Amino acid sequence: MKDYADSERQGNCIVVTINRPKERNPISAELFAEMKNALKTAQDDPTIGAVILTGASLENGQGFFCAGGNLNDLAASADRTPDERRELLETLHNFTRMVRDSDVPVIAAVEGGAAGAGCSIALTCDFVISAEDAKFSVAYVNVGLTPDGGVTSFLADILPRQLANEMCLLGKQVSAQRFYDLGVVNVVTENGAALQAALKLGERLAQGPRNTIATIKHLCSAAISNDLDAQLELEAVKMVEAQGLPEAKEGITAFFAKRKPDYVKLR
Amino acid sequence: MKDYADSERQGNCIVVTINRPKERNPISAELFAEMKNALKTAQDDPTIGAVILTGASLENGQGFFCAGGNLNDLAASADRTPDERRELLETLHNFTRMVRDSDVPVIAAVEGGAAGAGCSIALTCDFVISAEDAKFSVAYVNVGLTPDGGVTSFLADILPRQLANEMCLLGKQVSAQRFYDLGVVNVVTENGAALQAALKLGERLAQGPRNTIATIKHLCSAAISNDLDAQLELEAVKMVEAQGLPEAKEGITAFFAKRKPDYVKLR
Amino acid sequence: MKDYADSERQGNCIVVTINRPKERNPISAELFAEMKNALKTAQDDPTIGAVILTGASLENGQGFFCAGGNLNDLAASADRTPDERRELLETLHNFTRMVRDSDVPVIAAVEGGAAGAGCSIALTCDFVISAEDAKFSVAYVNVGLTPDGGVTSFLADILPRQLANEMCLLGKQVSAQRFYDLGVVNVVTENGAALQAALKLGERLAQGPRNTIATIKHLCSAAISNDLDAQLELEAVKMVEAQGLPEAKEGITAFFAKRKPDYVKLR
Repeated sequence: MKDYADSERQGNCIVVTINRPKERNPISAELFAEMKNALKTAQDDPTIGAVILTGASLENGQGFFCAGGNLNDLAASADRTPDERRELLETLHNFTRMVRDSDVPVIAAVEGGAAGAGCSIALTCDFVISAEDAKFSVAYVNVGLTPDGGVTSFLADILPRQLANEMCLLGKQVSAQRFYDLGVVNVVTENGAALQAALKLGERLAQGPRNTIATIKHLCSAAISNDLDAQLELEAVKMVEAQGLPEAKEGITAFFAKRKPDYVKLR
Repeated sequence: MKDYADSERQGNCIVVTINRPKERNPISAELFAEMKNALKTAQDDPTIGAVILTGASLENGQGFFCAGGNLNDLAASADRTPDERRELLETLHNFTRMVRDSDVPVIAAVEGGAAGAGCSIALTCDFVISAEDAKFSVAYVNVGLTPDGGVTSFLADILPRQLANEMCLLGKQVSAQRFYDLGVVNVVTENGAALQAALKLGERLAQGPRNTIATIKHLCSAAISNDLDAQLELEAVKMVEAQGLPEAKEGITAFFAKRKPDYVKLR
Repeated sequence: MKDYADSERQGNCIVVTINRPKERNPISAELFAEMKNALKTAQDDPTIGAVILTGASLENGQGFFCAGGNLNDLAASADRTPDERRELLETLHNFTRMVRDSDVPVIAAVEGGAAGAGCSIALTCDFVISAEDAKFSVAYVNVGLTPDGGVTSFLADILPRQLANEMCLLGKQVSAQRFYDLGVVNVVTENGAALQAALKLGERLAQGPRNTIATIKHLCSAAISNDLDAQLELEAVKMVEAQGLPEAKEGITAFFAKRKPDYVKLR
């Protein structure tokens, strides 16, 4: 597997693996380039149901998602100009925007820990599958840094301010089960089984109505900042379109024929 | 009872029943007309504490809320012009706006299932009472359609994006208990007892300070899109008004007299 | 202790105590003046980690946070002009804005009950520590008044609309454990131990990177109304700054030296 990040097709998913276990899988330019390629491939290949982001196991065999920024790299930041720092940071923020704008859903398969920017990129994903012992933490404060990667935005959407503050101001670790109870984690698995569960979810997405799923993903994303009136308008526009498209025809026809819809043949 | 939808006064509530059990209680023009009348009646009759929306039991005796859009109707949509589709859809979205704008609170009493637009109209309500076995699902994706009725907006307000995605992209069913734990369902009852609990809640509202309740309902609704500064301004304007009104006088007088306030006499 | 409100330094925190137990600790001009001083002192004294807001025990020995508005005072409101009412109300809303704008985090230590404006001021705080038997309620409706102090805004951010409605339209009491499960309360303690837990949390904040914590507090607050793009921009600006500041240097240096960072020496 390539150092820092690699990807491969597994079934109808593309699995991107953060692969720098000796440094606990930091984010890197290589990771963002790999994700960019994976999202492009997924967009162009109608058989792909999801892009899955996961981490390579550590040298002791324990699964681990991502420890966030590379601290060697961050240590060097003080000697960079603000413009240079900003340029590096934009590789992360471009990733955030890419995942949001992707038509194909992105699933985080988290083992062990998602810390700092690792937590940011996990929460950027449309779905989060997590092994039971995994911990989520916004650890920037521990080294005197402020959060990035959109994590303060995601936390404001998904958690009360008090718990978000506890994560961001104190670096509090939150467990997979706690995040499941709050609705942030979709599935809690046994340790070592997060990728398998993510692949299963990705296969379900691959059997679904691809264009409809893309439209709904963007509807759900837009809903976060739209007020009710604006979102009703957007839902109406999209529903009027959907009613004339082949996926709805197949879905409704299959319903009346009491058979499973076959959206795959429409691609 | 009238086909598709009917309403009747029960105590100090108006109960609107979705009544097309052989098609699992779909939404219909008749339902929205009935709700419009019920909300108008409730607005004009100061003894009414709440409008309750519920579904007739299925032919097998099982309670059921609403299965969403009428699929015969949706099947015909492909042959309609976009303008015709939009016009039909606006009957649903007018309902959504009517419930939001109503001074009188609206309570969903859910048995069995609330699917597709059935889930949308349940979550439009100010309160949701649900029988323990009821399931909530945004099932549009199953037939290749995109959500409407404001459900993506409501889900973005009440759930983390990951769980909202699971409902909207995969049609995941969520149980009454899960929605209670997350704060979406107000009361979980035994099967068959949702309407009774809704009536009880409606009676409490009927004993309350009617004008104050209307103002608070709109304050809570406005708070969803207002930022803190705008909402502080709105709260201040309304509180300054409230302090000069008869309901506050009665409430505060009763407090000092150590008696229950009698808001009903003020109407 | 001064009547209505007093404050004292305890360790590296300033503890403001609402002190009018015979009226169940109402809010007052004295309280807001005391908080204003405490926040100013905390801002100017770099050894202070947090301001803690708590209530004096009642005459029966039971802990109690705050019962909200002084009803004698509210009873007199009907005879005030709207401008006079607004002026009084702004003392509360100035408190709300002061806590939001404070660089130093504010912790509510709640025993017994936080009712009406007492609930508003608890939820205004960045952290809420609550004794297990404490109840939170937005009790305004019970006396025919509408909520203020930003509570409808805070509830819209932290709870589904249905539960927020139940609190605001019906005065429903919510337990500390329920608020913990939802992520609103940070720590549930035994009765009588909320202040102690708040002091412990305050000491952790006092050992942390003071300027970084202030920046993160404002990032988390801004995230509530910013959309993702605006928040990514704000995170980027703040992270680029942070990377050049002494706290990050100390944090990263300590990480590599495998020692605890010493942020206190930087002040």
